[in-house]
Amino acid sequence: MAETYAVIMAGGSGTRFWPASRPERPKQLLPLAPGDSRSLLEATVDRIAPLVPIERVIVVTAARLADATRDALPTLPPENLLAEPTGRNTAPCVGWAAATVRRRDPEARLMVLPADHHIGDEKTYLQTLATALAATDAGDLVTVGIKPTRPETGYGYIEVGEALDDKVSRARRFVEKPTRERAEQLFASGSYLWNSGMFFFRVDSILGAIEQHLPGLADGLAVLDAAAAEGHEAKSLQETYGDLPSISIDHGVMEKADRVAVVPGDFGWSDLGSWLTAWELSPKDDGGNAVGRDSVLLDASGNLVRAPLGKVVALVGVSDLVVVDTEDALLIVPRERAQEVKEVVAELAKR
Amino acid sequence: MAETYAVIMAGGSGTRFWPASRPERPKQLLPLAPGDSRSLLEATVDRIAPLVPIERVIVVTAARLADATRDALPTLPPENLLAEPTGRNTAPCVGWAAATVRRRDPEARLMVLPADHHIGDEKTYLQTLATALAATDAGDLVTVGIKPTRPETGYGYIEVGEALDDKVSRARRFVEKPTRERAEQLFASGSYLWNSGMFFFRVDSILGAIEQHLPGLADGLAVLDAAAAEGHEAKSLQETYGDLPSISIDHGVMEKADRVAVVPGDFGWSDLGSWLTAWELSPKDDGGNAVGRDSVLLDASGNLVRAPLGKVVALVGVSDLVVVDTEDALLIVPRERAQEVKEVVAELAKR
Repeated sequence: MAETYAVIMAGGSGTRFWPASRPERPKQLLPLAPGDSRSLLEATVDRIAPLVPIERVIVVTAARLADATRDALPTLPPENLLAEPTGRNTAPCVGWAAATVRRRDPEARLMVLPADHHIGDEKTYLQTLATALAATDAGDLVTVGIKPTRPETGYGYIEVGEALDDKVSRARRFVEKPTRERAEQLFASGSYLWNSGMFFFRVDSILGAIEQHLPGLADGLAVLDAAAAEGHEAKSLQETYGDLPSISIDHGVMEKADRVAVVPGDFGWSDLGSWLTAWELSPKDDGGNAVGRDSVLLDASGNLVRAPLGKVVALVGVSDLVVVDTEDALLIVPRERAQEVKEVVAELAKR
Repeated sequence: MAETYAVIMAGGSGTRFWPASRPERPKQLLPLAPGDSRSLLEATVDRIAPLVPIERVIVVTAARLADATRDALPTLPPENLLAEPTGRNTAPCVGWAAATVRRRDPEARLMVLPADHHIGDEKTYLQTLATALAATDAGDLVTVGIKPTRPETGYGYIEVGEALDDKVSRARRFVEKPTRERAEQLFASGSYLWNSGMFFFRVDSILGAIEQHLPGLADGLAVLDAAAAEGHEAKSLQETYGDLPSISIDHGVMEKADRVAVVPGDFGWSDLGSWLTAWELSPKDDGGNAVGRDSVLLDASGNLVRAPLGKVVALVGVSDLVVVDTEDALLIVPRERAQEVKEVVAELAKR
């Protein structure tokens, strides 16, 4: 049987978790999962270990994050870290990883996973991944779609088509992040799943689909392959990568390909998209506060507090706030407006 | 003419400005006046310099604060710092300072001032102090009463009696901190002033009054005087001070004495009693925020922020909060509940 490689996409810049996240310390390198001292990236790698040993884990990140990413995964073989000279969205990232794996094993299967998600039920998660991997055998491009729990406007959706077997269906189409009204319809219909950004395919399938739908990318990958054969891929990467088409694997390939399948997933998935999500996932006291033991709470409820160990955070008469304290920055925002932290980051970038 | 000595009462523990204030760094040692980098104590000493040079300033503080107080006032002659072995309220503090001054100059006049108040109009303040000092000549115990600007329940009041001249009146009686209803009455009557805790008298007048109304204190002071004459006051202080009656100069002497006068004061006085007061006195932006230049404000109004220089404090969608950040503690409380910080300090003391 063909071996499976995992491609972990770990290039996110993570402005939504400011001030914990910074350009040099983005979300995937932070321990944002409640009660887990590991970075989200390390947790992701650990989680899939029963399916893919670290020797076959490929981590794609930005060049500026390469050192920090190596530090976060000390057991990752150095050649398994792919550092993009510049960000070109996910299609070049997946394409480069697929080309790299093909040189090692032309029959390999790939599972492409974001580095920064949260999984509540790991056993079901692994079963779902195994199902999705098995579904790649016939050459399909496979995705896992999450069973929606609310009419979320922050995710893309996948329409489920005909059943291929009891666990796998044809994916009829991909739907962009919807309006509120449209999200209600999609949620009510029962035939749409959230696009989780997890993809599964044989390397030859995805590289064939790239050749068909993103020929510019395929040409660039051929240049890299040729350079690798002559031992100077690094130099070629610097010259080539910035010119690759900047497009997502969803838009560039999945939406256009003929044989796309979807496996429904229901395993406590969260994209951990904001401090609000972090609060939702955290254990809370009777007053709905998710705070450290060094906090002092007087008539305070529904708050999330993140602060350095040992720092006393006293909340008196405040509710439903996100309070994130770091050495050089402090954020205070109502929980329901947590996504506006992006505007703070933009304001700081202007200064 | 008799010389004037200032007695600065600088022993406050200042729990109301936690986390900026701490047992070892109380309010009077902090730069809490808006736009003033000096400690409140230093500002107090500087403010009265036109009336009293540093050589005749006596600072009474707690033994545990002696070093920090010396550091805050490097030009204070060492013998002018009186360190109480233990706090016994203000009557022993004033009595000890008066006895100390009498040994240097039996005809001296004293002005007793808190170390931690804020004065808006220093010129009028100094004129008022000069008036109060002059009123001590006939042997009266004199106080400055502040013209009330609101029916405050947090201060004691002084009822103004017959006029002694155009600036000085007999003080008819001292009134404890009133209830809300009573405060409204006192404020409406127009014949009550706030008790500012500033006192003026000749040393012989106050020591005579102590002898009459607090004989136990007078006895203790006599022991200290005798020890000082033999050159071992420090040792005697350790043995004696803790047994002195613990009572305020207001209750113990001023309320009981026959000849008490009051001079009305109207010079932008504030006791800087809480973070709310600090916000009130601070310059604010158009949104009523009193924050540093390192703050980022998005839809935020009426907030007070104190944070270390260079720390970015981002407030998004919050209003009327007090946010005080220090290296090891952070406080968040609505402005109008700022006085509840005392409960945080109590809770921390319990832990």
